[in-house]
Amino acid sequence: MIKIKKINHIGIAVENLEKSMWFWNDVLGLTLMNVEEVPSHKVKVAFLRAGDSDIELLTPLEGNFVMGKFVQEKGGGLDHLCLEVENIEAVLVELQENGIKLLDETPKVLPGRKIAFVNPSSSDGVLLEFYELI
Amino acid sequence: MIKIKKINHIGIAVENLEKSMWFWNDVLGLTLMNVEEVPSHKVKVAFLRAGDSDIELLTPLEGNFVMGKFVQEKGGGLDHLCLEVENIEAVLVELQENGIKLLDETPKVLPGRKIAFVNPSSSDGVLLEFYELI
Repeated sequence: MIKIKKINHIGIAVENLEKSMWFWNDVLGLTLMNVEEVPSHKVKVAFLRAGDSDIELLTPLEGNFVMGKFVQEKGGGLDHLCLEVENIEAVLVELQENGIKLLDETPKVLPGRKIAFVNPSSSDGVLLEFYELI
Repeated sequence: MIKIKKINHIGIAVENLEKSMWFWNDVLGLTLMNVEEVPSHKVKVAFLRAGDSDIELLTPLEGNFVMGKFVQEKGGGLDHLCLEVENIEAVLVELQENGIKLLDETPKVLPGRKIAFVNPSSSDGVLLEFYELI
């Protein structure tokens, strides 16, 4: 039985991280927690705290053509939803047993967390990320 | 100074509410809290609890051509982000003082809550909802 702890974060693709910080940080008053580059996903990200969850602003790094095209054409938008779980390996097994298609059959290990994405064709078109704190 | 309490919910547009419930409710184990029709927005919605926030599945009612076309073409996807605040009228005033464009300059009153949407051109392409419990 899968147990979702909470929405860990909601990812928003933006054209320019510094410019977007004005709205989310200065105007809305969300506290900036962390800024980092994630080379494996070719993005630079900023996490802002909203209650018990984060809002993650993502901007494409060089060579990230898909997100680069998206933010250029649309000016940004909702990118993905991330749900936090206790044991990501067990969750991935159970998802596959239910016929859910995964983009990552084993988690990627990043600083402080393990993550894996579901194929949006199995999750109502939503790019869905699972996240385990490590 | 705006104070965001939390992410109240994240809205996901789906083609078929009953079919989608299988994934979000049965497979992921998220608890179904409430199902309602919102005639003013021509949607039927289901709220599922994820930690301190909800996931809102929305399906278009008859005459909702924009969302109807979206779910038919894409099979669904992230629709909007909703942030909970204490005093929505004060938030809307402060947003306008900062030059943020609103879709609703005064809140709409629904059962149990007041809501208002920001024009996505002012919020990185994100359809952003503010929400006050009443």
